[in-house]
Amino acid sequence: MKAVSINKPGSAAELIIEKREKPTPQNGELLIKVKATAINRTDIMKRENQQLQSPYPILGVEMAGVVEENNSSNTEFALGTRVASLVNNGSYAEYVTIPAERVIHLPDEISFEEGTAIPEVFLTAYQTLYWLGKLQQDETVLIHAGGSGVGTAAIQLAKQLTDAKVITTAGSAEKLDFCKQLGADETINYKTEDFSERVLEITDGEGVELILDFVGASYWEKNFKSIKVDGRWILIGTLGGSVVENVNIGSLLGKRVTLKATVLTPRSDGYKAELTREFVEKVLPLFKAGKIHPIIDRVFPFEEVAEAHRYMEDNKNTGKIILSLEKEDNRA
Amino acid sequence: MKAVSINKPGSAAELIIEKREKPTPQNGELLIKVKATAINRTDIMKRENQQLQSPYPILGVEMAGVVEENNSSNTEFALGTRVASLVNNGSYAEYVTIPAERVIHLPDEISFEEGTAIPEVFLTAYQTLYWLGKLQQDETVLIHAGGSGVGTAAIQLAKQLTDAKVITTAGSAEKLDFCKQLGADETINYKTEDFSERVLEITDGEGVELILDFVGASYWEKNFKSIKVDGRWILIGTLGGSVVENVNIGSLLGKRVTLKATVLTPRSDGYKAELTREFVEKVLPLFKAGKIHPIIDRVFPFEEVAEAHRYMEDNKNTGKIILSLEKEDNRA
Repeated sequence: MKAVSINKPGSAAELIIEKREKPTPQNGELLIKVKATAINRTDIMKRENQQLQSPYPILGVEMAGVVEENNSSNTEFALGTRVASLVNNGSYAEYVTIPAERVIHLPDEISFEEGTAIPEVFLTAYQTLYWLGKLQQDETVLIHAGGSGVGTAAIQLAKQLTDAKVITTAGSAEKLDFCKQLGADETINYKTEDFSERVLEITDGEGVELILDFVGASYWEKNFKSIKVDGRWILIGTLGGSVVENVNIGSLLGKRVTLKATVLTPRSDGYKAELTREFVEKVLPLFKAGKIHPIIDRVFPFEEVAEAHRYMEDNKNTGKIILSLEKEDNRA
Repeated sequence: MKAVSINKPGSAAELIIEKREKPTPQNGELLIKVKATAINRTDIMKRENQQLQSPYPILGVEMAGVVEENNSSNTEFALGTRVASLVNNGSYAEYVTIPAERVIHLPDEISFEEGTAIPEVFLTAYQTLYWLGKLQQDETVLIHAGGSGVGTAAIQLAKQLTDAKVITTAGSAEKLDFCKQLGADETINYKTEDFSERVLEITDGEGVELILDFVGASYWEKNFKSIKVDGRWILIGTLGGSVVENVNIGSLLGKRVTLKATVLTPRSDGYKAELTREFVEKVLPLFKAGKIHPIIDRVFPFEEVAEAHRYMEDNKNTGKIILSLEKEDNRA
């Protein structure tokens, strides 16, 4: 089968489409013919990871497709069933295998391209807002990078599941407009405003109960100013750098801050299965009802994976960047 | 009544015993005649706090004594009932008032000196281990400053309530011996050993699920090395400094660390009442049964409050430092 890996760790120019062996589903697993996969920042980090040794892995952590073989006892997944899922062993490929218990059964209303836009960002947004962030009705949440994949998912979930007050930051008027359309109550252009000052204005000087922070070091001080006493601060990325100089833990004590650092990809299969189960129960009905939407910025053909990576690196997207394998089917 | 305050913010030499007005219990409150009160580090921090303005507060956050007036609807607290409690408005005094719902009814087996050794350290240890730290049966917890008030309480609770594996650090062989007697499974002298290396040895390289950290900045790197993936790190003091240089939040993400900064004293009355209620239900029976003991290092007469403060500042104590007001009674 065709799959995307790298020549060597480095820039998007190192991406290659090569032949790999079609995987065989183990006990409890499904074999899926992939119809679409999505680009995530973790793919770019893996691509650049100088620790990687040859043979290099297949990139990608999520996909949508159809069941081609069911080697599990779960009869829900007949051949041809439309599904989407997180994937452990690379999703930029014509076929993947995954544990049946971690698969989302895609409603007919949702296309494959929309389907692959769901697992990583919506599961991450759900996990960080509710499992880790314990967001409650009537609380205020600050969602950074509102135009990103997780940002667009988190805005929708926070409004639809809890009717929380959502403050979001982004770097352009277009992205902020889009965040408003998704339900954000207040938007802040971090390039032209000090977001912590605006947050304190909006919250009568109290700050927010919850922060979803993809940015890390460069926002540290302002996030600290923006958080309320007893607030929860969920750290899920370091787009703005990893190293914070001079963390004042005395101040953290003063505000009784809870800081939770998290990444979804390396968590256990059991954790992801339980998260997927709860997500399917609580959120999938909102997709079916058209109240929550997978947000797609742009679809690239599979062959243009390098362009798709560069597009993400340019930070231009609002929502997900998708690779479609539908053309592969037409050729076959 | 007599009460301890300060001439001006500064050293123990600034402590003064002066006449203050006897407080009046508000609706829902008890008036308590204080028999013993205890020294806490927060008292020393308040004593030194250059922000304080005259009139200076009465120091102290906990006491044991007898009910002298009950202005609540709670009939459990007849006049003469022996009680212990956290106190908001200063406990180094002949009388205090407190909400009835926050009071621990002292069993006859527990003296007043032992009683005042319970609220701050045992409630803090209970709150940090269980409410914040979610300590589970069979987990491993690293308790720093094992000879401190909260340390001696936390070791006992972790063993008696959950049978967790307890690793503790202290700075002398005597303190470490005492920690062993309290139930600690492993003890580390932080002056002669790198505690993180020992923790990794003891845990087969995995690290501990939970850290109770009173030390802060100077232990930061070693605590990070000592914590397991998905570990909880409860920060409750900054004895080793407040400012950490170069915190690598990328590493926090890699280990998915939860860091909770907390202090008990400024929390709401409702929070303390609920904590006290649960503590009375779950832990007081263990005191009555002689399985858990308030740990007292030394009792000073009320007049020797300055000596008592200096004794704590010298870091010599294992367990609590108490001020007794019994002599005041004999004089009266």
